[in-house]
Amino acid sequence: MNANADEKMASPASVEVDVVVVGAGLSGLSAAYELTKRDPSLRVAVLEAKDRVGGRTLTTTLKAAGGEDVWDLGGQWVGSSQTHIMALIQELGLEVYSQYDKGKKYMKLGDNKIRTFTSIPALPFWVLIDLYFLMRKIDSMSSQVPIEDPYQCQYAEKWDSITVEEFMQQQCWTAGAKEAADCLFLILGGADCSQMSLLFLLAQTNAAGGTGAVFDSSQSGQEFKVKGGTQQISSLLAEKIGKQNIFLNHPVMTVTQDDTQVHITTTKGDVFKCSRAIFTTMPQQTASMQFNPCLPAEKLELFKRMPAGYIVKFIITYQTAFWRDEGFSGEIVSSGKTDLLLGVLDATSPNGNPALVGFVAAKHAVKWSSQEASKRKAAVLSAIAEFLGPQAEECLDYVEKNWGEEPYTLGGPGCIGGTGCMAYYAAGLRKPFKRIHFGGTESATAWCSYLSGAVQAGIRTAIEVLHHLRPQTVTQEELKQTAYCPDSAQKKND
Amino acid sequence: MNANADEKMASPASVEVDVVVVGAGLSGLSAAYELTKRDPSLRVAVLEAKDRVGGRTLTTTLKAAGGEDVWDLGGQWVGSSQTHIMALIQELGLEVYSQYDKGKKYMKLGDNKIRTFTSIPALPFWVLIDLYFLMRKIDSMSSQVPIEDPYQCQYAEKWDSITVEEFMQQQCWTAGAKEAADCLFLILGGADCSQMSLLFLLAQTNAAGGTGAVFDSSQSGQEFKVKGGTQQISSLLAEKIGKQNIFLNHPVMTVTQDDTQVHITTTKGDVFKCSRAIFTTMPQQTASMQFNPCLPAEKLELFKRMPAGYIVKFIITYQTAFWRDEGFSGEIVSSGKTDLLLGVLDATSPNGNPALVGFVAAKHAVKWSSQEASKRKAAVLSAIAEFLGPQAEECLDYVEKNWGEEPYTLGGPGCIGGTGCMAYYAAGLRKPFKRIHFGGTESATAWCSYLSGAVQAGIRTAIEVLHHLRPQTVTQEELKQTAYCPDSAQKKND
Repeated sequence: MNANADEKMASPASVEVDVVVVGAGLSGLSAAYELTKRDPSLRVAVLEAKDRVGGRTLTTTLKAAGGEDVWDLGGQWVGSSQTHIMALIQELGLEVYSQYDKGKKYMKLGDNKIRTFTSIPALPFWVLIDLYFLMRKIDSMSSQVPIEDPYQCQYAEKWDSITVEEFMQQQCWTAGAKEAADCLFLILGGADCSQMSLLFLLAQTNAAGGTGAVFDSSQSGQEFKVKGGTQQISSLLAEKIGKQNIFLNHPVMTVTQDDTQVHITTTKGDVFKCSRAIFTTMPQQTASMQFNPCLPAEKLELFKRMPAGYIVKFIITYQTAFWRDEGFSGEIVSSGKTDLLLGVLDATSPNGNPALVGFVAAKHAVKWSSQEASKRKAAVLSAIAEFLGPQAEECLDYVEKNWGEEPYTLGGPGCIGGTGCMAYYAAGLRKPFKRIHFGGTESATAWCSYLSGAVQAGIRTAIEVLHHLRPQTVTQEELKQTAYCPDSAQKKND
Repeated sequence: MNANADEKMASPASVEVDVVVVGAGLSGLSAAYELTKRDPSLRVAVLEAKDRVGGRTLTTTLKAAGGEDVWDLGGQWVGSSQTHIMALIQELGLEVYSQYDKGKKYMKLGDNKIRTFTSIPALPFWVLIDLYFLMRKIDSMSSQVPIEDPYQCQYAEKWDSITVEEFMQQQCWTAGAKEAADCLFLILGGADCSQMSLLFLLAQTNAAGGTGAVFDSSQSGQEFKVKGGTQQISSLLAEKIGKQNIFLNHPVMTVTQDDTQVHITTTKGDVFKCSRAIFTTMPQQTASMQFNPCLPAEKLELFKRMPAGYIVKFIITYQTAFWRDEGFSGEIVSSGKTDLLLGVLDATSPNGNPALVGFVAAKHAVKWSSQEASKRKAAVLSAIAEFLGPQAEECLDYVEKNWGEEPYTLGGPGCIGGTGCMAYYAAGLRKPFKRIHFGGTESATAWCSYLSGAVQAGIRTAIEVLHHLRPQTVTQEELKQTAYCPDSAQKKND
């Protein structure tokens, strides 16, 4: 009944292990790996609804100048301050390379004027000042938001009842700054600013180390890429865990727990019994499973209000990196107000195969999805040609990945907190529910929604479980960092 | 393989019908009934995940002064302007009776002062003025929001990026008015005002005919109750449809459609093939099913952001309606700021068995859920005793229903639109997706989230389907009222 033999299986099976991990994305696999690494005697089963491991990472092969090469259609960037993913990459023997960002960049906002710049956007002075103060304000506010439990911030209630859109309307006095910030948040979250709680944005920003780290491609947000693609991380982890322990095409249907065991039944009727379970599925997916006893109200109220964003990613390969020859970095930020194109970066592979990567997100991606594939491709190429010249239309290969259409994921890159639910954030995302522990990058306290957050959250859940099953393998220091239920979290509401 | 024989079924079955209706709540059953009533030759199958029909209605038996009697733990109120449910009640031979509202009412707000009143709350004059202007403002704004497609309103974008909480903070200049309005919206939606898009509230209010109709128990919102309970409506509909056509315990897993058929597979592996399908499941539940091809982006983005509210309803039965004897109506509105109790009304049965009904909602219900059952009961009784005297603690029976714990429903009374998703409301909720039509009370254009809306939406989907399968049974006039895709809906965004 392993991943390969799955199709042949005739009747429902019953499997008993120590720990069941639900979700074979980076977080679930990190949890399973950490468990088996610390104690190889632990029997672990990983259940995955899809037919592959890797979750929101996905590496694909495209036609390239040198024949063919691989690119990432899902999560791809890592950075030096993203310690959890960097350590794992090193441990697995993978290598990173820098995001190319030399040369001039392009920006187009609502006034339709194409501007080039190197470090500081060539926007009117007053727009730059406005943007600078907005980002400084966000940094200053976000530093007041505790990462473990954002609702402990003294302005939590107020900031959680305002959307990012409303906040920017109040703060920005130039249309340009508002539009530039709109673009950045849209690409970052895959959601419109009107769909995002201000407190959620502030917590995410703080967890990443500030707006600079998030947005500046020379900093940790988009600093490095992984040679050969990020899905390798999951594939290598799956090998280490043992493929016979990973059950693909096994969507979870019901979850029943009592004082001694958790019984997890998949849609095919297979039953997995375990002492502890780790759920790394996305919040709304977890909420759609049938829990008995049912999920605590605080989890449910958060999960229901943390939908995935909506993002389409495209990769375009070229014969030459013509933009580099002409002194451009390949970076384009184009206001969603005037067209579909939102963000483009150089994606030339470490083998030197030239490419660009770009994103369409949120409301733009919704419109986008309703068009025919050929029209979408033509629209992207002509939009890029507006900046980089007609050569942009002569590509070798073009592929797009609509994460909203990905089964069991239904969006990306991360899940976005709507207004009015952050009160449940700490207890909803991280607090164990009897014998069930909760991971997934959304529950991370550093770089949540990033690859690194997925690893951090996975390791945390492994430590929580080991604390119960193999207490000798975890230190008091590690246990403190689980922080899954800060005592302070309840105080304010009681 | 009907509802009763279901347990005996050994191997997956394959059923072929003309129409599959998913969901045996009031909307799905209304759709199936309308289909078979107009053309008895139509083969219809209704799939239901739960082990009962009735959805968000649920009637239960309690100890009562006269031995025992029945009360509604789910949706219960109907009103004379709710034409769809009133016609159905008459057709089914059921009777309604008036909500008792004679005598003095109680109100307690953040100042902890208990006030009694008959028609106008005995609040300070300036609070009343403030509340009056707030409601007038909401009525005036909501009349500008087209019910079929709220996003056609000229302020749609702005109003959809503001929460109801933020709007009230801006509008109210007294704490009392803000608190009173908070209570009303909280009970109405089962969600905190910070979780609700202002545009969504305005559209809902307009669909119900204004704030007066919604809040005043003498008007249509809470005008009548159904003798014997509202679940009878679904039970009687199920009989008319034929119990052999209703498949309980059949949660839908995958939905595949091509140019000729829809194939719906349940979690047990049964396959239902049909020409047209009607989904009346709640938005987030529908989103969690596997559609192939996948749901259009506009549906997905709306469904992900329309979570169910969270509400706990309790019924308390008494030997005597002592509050009536003392000149009180039984109505209590108590600010959630000071305690758990939010809303209470007289629930004396048409047989004269005295009772009270009450609600705890949203953040109060979340705290509530984490307490022990005995403590919850004691808290409710002592809170009511604060208003009605010590007799309130001497009840015959007490029952509570936490709708957040109801499988496949996960909340109530309705689903609440978060900020930033109303642009997809018309196309997301009502536009058919190839051979699949969408009902459910959330998609109604009159009294949505009410019982009447469920019936209206069910009949609309039936007419849509009949238009394709039995065109001679529908009139042009009826077809116009389907309005599932107003031409105007796209114009603004294109």
